[in-house]
Amino acid sequence: MIKQITNLTKTLKKRFLQVPKYPFGNSCCNKNLQIANLFSTNQKMTTEVKKDPYQLWQLPVKDETKYLTGLKVKNTLNPQNLVEFVPHKGKQVRFYNCGPTVYDSSHIGHARTYISADIIKRIMVKYFGYDVFHCMNITDIDDKIIKKSNESGEEFTAFARKWEMDYWQDMETLNVDKPDVIVRVSEYVPEIISYIEKIIENGYAYVANGSVYFNVDKFHESPTHCYSKLEPQSVNDAQKLDEGEGALGKKDEKEKRSPRDFALWKASKPGEPFWDSPWGQGRPGWHIECSTMASEILGYPVDIHMGGEDLKFPHHDNELAQSEAFYNKQDCQNQWVNYFMHTGHLHIDGLKMSKSLKNFITIKHLSSQHSQRVLRLLFMKQTYDSTMDYTTDSIHEAKTKDKKYSEFYLTMNAILLQSEINVPQKWGPREFELRDLFVEKQDNIHRAFQKNFNVPEALKELDEIITAVNTYIKEKPIIHLLIRSIFNYVKHIFNCLGLIYEKQQAQAKDDTFIRTVGLISSLRDEIRGANKDLQVINKAAINAKSSLGEITLKLEPNASESAVQIATDYITQVLKCVEDNQLQQIYKASDEIRDEKLIQIGIRIDDGKPGEPSLWKIDDKETLLKEKEEKILKEKQKEEEKRKKEEEKLKAMSVNPAEMFKNDPNYSKYQFDERGIPSHDEKGTPLKEKAIQSFVKKYDAQKKLYEQYLEKTSKK
Amino acid sequence: MIKQITNLTKTLKKRFLQVPKYPFGNSCCNKNLQIANLFSTNQKMTTEVKKDPYQLWQLPVKDETKYLTGLKVKNTLNPQNLVEFVPHKGKQVRFYNCGPTVYDSSHIGHARTYISADIIKRIMVKYFGYDVFHCMNITDIDDKIIKKSNESGEEFTAFARKWEMDYWQDMETLNVDKPDVIVRVSEYVPEIISYIEKIIENGYAYVANGSVYFNVDKFHESPTHCYSKLEPQSVNDAQKLDEGEGALGKKDEKEKRSPRDFALWKASKPGEPFWDSPWGQGRPGWHIECSTMASEILGYPVDIHMGGEDLKFPHHDNELAQSEAFYNKQDCQNQWVNYFMHTGHLHIDGLKMSKSLKNFITIKHLSSQHSQRVLRLLFMKQTYDSTMDYTTDSIHEAKTKDKKYSEFYLTMNAILLQSEINVPQKWGPREFELRDLFVEKQDNIHRAFQKNFNVPEALKELDEIITAVNTYIKEKPIIHLLIRSIFNYVKHIFNCLGLIYEKQQAQAKDDTFIRTVGLISSLRDEIRGANKDLQVINKAAINAKSSLGEITLKLEPNASESAVQIATDYITQVLKCVEDNQLQQIYKASDEIRDEKLIQIGIRIDDGKPGEPSLWKIDDKETLLKEKEEKILKEKQKEEEKRKKEEEKLKAMSVNPAEMFKNDPNYSKYQFDERGIPSHDEKGTPLKEKAIQSFVKKYDAQKKLYEQYLEKTSKK
Repeated sequence: MIKQITNLTKTLKKRFLQVPKYPFGNSCCNKNLQIANLFSTNQKMTTEVKKDPYQLWQLPVKDETKYLTGLKVKNTLNPQNLVEFVPHKGKQVRFYNCGPTVYDSSHIGHARTYISADIIKRIMVKYFGYDVFHCMNITDIDDKIIKKSNESGEEFTAFARKWEMDYWQDMETLNVDKPDVIVRVSEYVPEIISYIEKIIENGYAYVANGSVYFNVDKFHESPTHCYSKLEPQSVNDAQKLDEGEGALGKKDEKEKRSPRDFALWKASKPGEPFWDSPWGQGRPGWHIECSTMASEILGYPVDIHMGGEDLKFPHHDNELAQSEAFYNKQDCQNQWVNYFMHTGHLHIDGLKMSKSLKNFITIKHLSSQHSQRVLRLLFMKQTYDSTMDYTTDSIHEAKTKDKKYSEFYLTMNAILLQSEINVPQKWGPREFELRDLFVEKQDNIHRAFQKNFNVPEALKELDEIITAVNTYIKEKPIIHLLIRSIFNYVKHIFNCLGLIYEKQQAQAKDDTFIRTVGLISSLRDEIRGANKDLQVINKAAINAKSSLGEITLKLEPNASESAVQIATDYITQVLKCVEDNQLQQIYKASDEIRDEKLIQIGIRIDDGKPGEPSLWKIDDKETLLKEKEEKILKEKQKEEEKRKKEEEKLKAMSVNPAEMFKNDPNYSKYQFDERGIPSHDEKGTPLKEKAIQSFVKKYDAQKKLYEQYLEKTSKK
Repeated sequence: MIKQITNLTKTLKKRFLQVPKYPFGNSCCNKNLQIANLFSTNQKMTTEVKKDPYQLWQLPVKDETKYLTGLKVKNTLNPQNLVEFVPHKGKQVRFYNCGPTVYDSSHIGHARTYISADIIKRIMVKYFGYDVFHCMNITDIDDKIIKKSNESGEEFTAFARKWEMDYWQDMETLNVDKPDVIVRVSEYVPEIISYIEKIIENGYAYVANGSVYFNVDKFHESPTHCYSKLEPQSVNDAQKLDEGEGALGKKDEKEKRSPRDFALWKASKPGEPFWDSPWGQGRPGWHIECSTMASEILGYPVDIHMGGEDLKFPHHDNELAQSEAFYNKQDCQNQWVNYFMHTGHLHIDGLKMSKSLKNFITIKHLSSQHSQRVLRLLFMKQTYDSTMDYTTDSIHEAKTKDKKYSEFYLTMNAILLQSEINVPQKWGPREFELRDLFVEKQDNIHRAFQKNFNVPEALKELDEIITAVNTYIKEKPIIHLLIRSIFNYVKHIFNCLGLIYEKQQAQAKDDTFIRTVGLISSLRDEIRGANKDLQVINKAAINAKSSLGEITLKLEPNASESAVQIATDYITQVLKCVEDNQLQQIYKASDEIRDEKLIQIGIRIDDGKPGEPSLWKIDDKETLLKEKEEKILKEKQKEEEKRKKEEEKLKAMSVNPAEMFKNDPNYSKYQFDERGIPSHDEKGTPLKEKAIQSFVKKYDAQKKLYEQYLEKTSKK
């Protein structure tokens, strides 16, 4: 391995001086092209390499096997116009977005990034029907984490994990769906090392003093590669380059052949966490993790890569360079990511958020002030890719919207719960008008989503549907099937946006509850409509009483309360047994709770193998009881069989050895010894000694059994 | 009106003898064409009209505005090959399916038809993302209904409505989603009459003896029309023609110009229900209702028309003829329905179902034996358009499948509930293998759905996913995010098929319940793992006790039980007040229950206008309490304002009229009369008489107030 690397680093010393040609054909966009003259300010370079990254981008192959929905997206790889979204295969979308570096609380900027990605993913899956596979990294090895954990005195790994868990909790609060796979840098170090080895092997990285650097100039000079496809104008931005290399990396600057080169592997300094590698102890650079882990899980190509605007350069540009250097396709297109999408900046009252400005808002603080729905509506006020300004006004607006939607849900649920089919269903002009508006808005919402996920536009249309329904229901009669359909659609769109309005109403919604409240409501109405006639009221109340009786017959005790009671009893019993030193009783209680009590509340416990935790399942009480019965029945059958066998055995034992051979027609009826063992066969011929010996054996065995039998029976 | 009709019937007497040309270009399918030589056996016709209906069918216009998903369907209008599905506009799908004639219990044949349509609709909406608008008719005017209601002695309308409600109940049991609009024949008679008038006007129907008949020959002879596009081979099938005309229609046969002609309007005979029309009292024919109501609601064209195989001829063929005669497009294509889809036949143990064979199975009987999931799985064993054989074996198979799926849900829910992120997430070969299989199966399921909704094929693929997951989870560790994603996908597909496995587990799933059971389960595990160490067990039990304490702190009383208690109290109170003759107390109780008790269980009652029923909504308890507080606060503020006004009034009243003008600097300080009214201004000039009179008025008014004030204050 080491030898190979030495050879590779030798080859790295050769310089390529050829001027590269444009390696790919022109793609669909060729107006207002911005020529990226990357290296004009580089004193070291002998050639000027002009490449237009936006012109290099190619639309994935469109054919009949591709699922095409008319969706167009803003692609940072070719950002002048929206481009059609074409999956790499069928309807499969490999989706990668940059996760957090875990060393502190997540803030409103993170909220925006991850909610935006969440909404885009939901729309792709739930609205357009793509099969999205979502991979997200957790940067748990990083200079900032090292610094912060050192400051806090906490162990590096535990410190990172603590903040990672904090991040997941925040995401849960924000109703951000989890990815299909989480890749932690700390869990992929061997893969990262192999990945770097391959890049060195392909000639695009070099080892220096225990670190490995990416050779940007060499990469860009290659005819099949292009560096900085996303933000070519920043390629010589010293501050960005500096930030990209991390807080602890500055001293190694002299090891680089060019200031644009960046670390793939950093040799560790004393006191820093390290992993063994062919280049000595060290840790991965920042950018390499995403290349490695996204390649590992998703492969080539990735359909959509998302991240915040501030990650374009150098992080995403370096990531692209690394992966394209890794795959190093020669005969086909080097386009590891087909669509790179970036979420816009977030400002607070017009200013950038920073701890120094004291306008740094954590997600925890936000969530303590506002519901997740309000926050989501806040972020949905602008498209995901535009700059967002967080202000008191914008919060107020989101709250007003939330209230409108919430009220709409309450009203619709109430009307639909209290509607029935057994009324006229004929449409009049009001229904036709509402339906026509509905269909038109559905079209508009579709077009809005197709237009780079234009959520604010879609919401505007949805608002008009809601307003129309609110107007419609003011007048009677209401054709409830029509508003039910519209409500179903509204719920679907909300679901596509991750807006949850059901939960608030779910807990109370069991059948008994609904019937009981309906009964109260009807009785009140009858009293109001009784025209002060006590007779009528009396009759209504008596009817209600009898209906209530029917309802309560079916009333099941509260599952939660039962569970709590069972738990209380169990704990008390265990504590008591501990006091009385009755271990067996404790085990018995543990069996009992599984076999009796938990079944009663519809819980099945599978104990699994010894040492493994048990798995508990919510199941149907009746099923469990039936199973238990069957189990008992089987046990009874087993016992019965056992009993029968015993009985047969006992019967065999009860034979007196002296009588054993007496009735056997094979032997002479008259010639036996004193024990009753035959000496001659039925014809009077004397038996051979061997045969007699076997009879003696049998006699002795039976004698033993018979004595046992006599003993047993005498006891009874 | 009558005059116009007479003119029209006159023009009907002219005969068109020209041989029509093929009016439309060839569509995509032109192999194995079956030439429909409709009139070769017709003794009356002088010309032979050959038209190939399958060749007439045209694919709707495909352009970029259309939402194309690669879905292909079997279209009875061109059944040789599957044809691409193209909506008439954008992603809008106008969907019509033939509902039941309501005079008896629905049977397994209905179950198959409506479950099939339900699945197709769900796949289109939930899987492919079309905006489907679904219209379904209820045939509540029909010869069979007249016969049956007469036999039962029940009133015709009520009889039909009773069986309609019975049908809806069956559909609910089968989890068949309701249409977006229900059209009942009885509610659309005026529209049907106008529709018939238009067909007469267009020359394709004639009046005879109070009835109206469709002129089949004339329609088919027209160059722009074609009769019997669906089942041309049956056009002279006497039995089918007879059945199509209804049980009470046979005697009118002589009124028809051809045995193929069919009734649009039937003159009523004595004792039959009737509606007034320009042709006298009568009722609509069977086929006209669907043409009229589908046109009324959906317009031209209809995207998908569904129905049972047995409705192809004459019902659907006549429906098409009527609508195309109604719209009578001259300059463009006459294609009222773009895709006609038919569900296959159902046999019972290889035989047709019939009451005479005593193998007639009602939905109610079926549902009493099997869950809706088992029934759905039974129907999903074959594609919707193939013949299905209902056998004991097929039921058994469906049950086995159901059990497998149910167990999968239970296990997945249990594992996911008991998983956490704070464990290694790194993938090994087992995860890659499972993911690769998953992605492959997703592709296969997509292709199966695209292929004329091939549900059995899709289910086969889904089964393989489930088997793979079941194998995967047997070994530890489990990367739960991966199986969570797969489970989400499986749930989505089940949802697209209308298979519900969540409900069984929903009721018990509140947070307290889950935490409590989790606690019991953990304690058991700790005891098992304690190696008989009582100290360890003791500690675990004490910890559990304290955790349980935390849980129960949050325990809310059961909403259902509270509601029942509130209802009981309310009823008791009302009954008591009735006994005591305390009407006001009853009203007070009705207000109290709204303002106090129902708020406590999160119920808001909106009373609405007098005479209208109130609407109750499930709302958030905290919100309601807050609103109530705000209301009380507002009332307090109002009272405070009122009190202040009173105080000011009292203060004004307390002024002695004799002192009123004394300190006014505008008047002389010295010149007043005995009442204290000034006579000169501050400069000593005498005041005008008019001014003095106004002072007197003011004095008198204040005197009254002052006397009232004195009276009031003396009382205190």
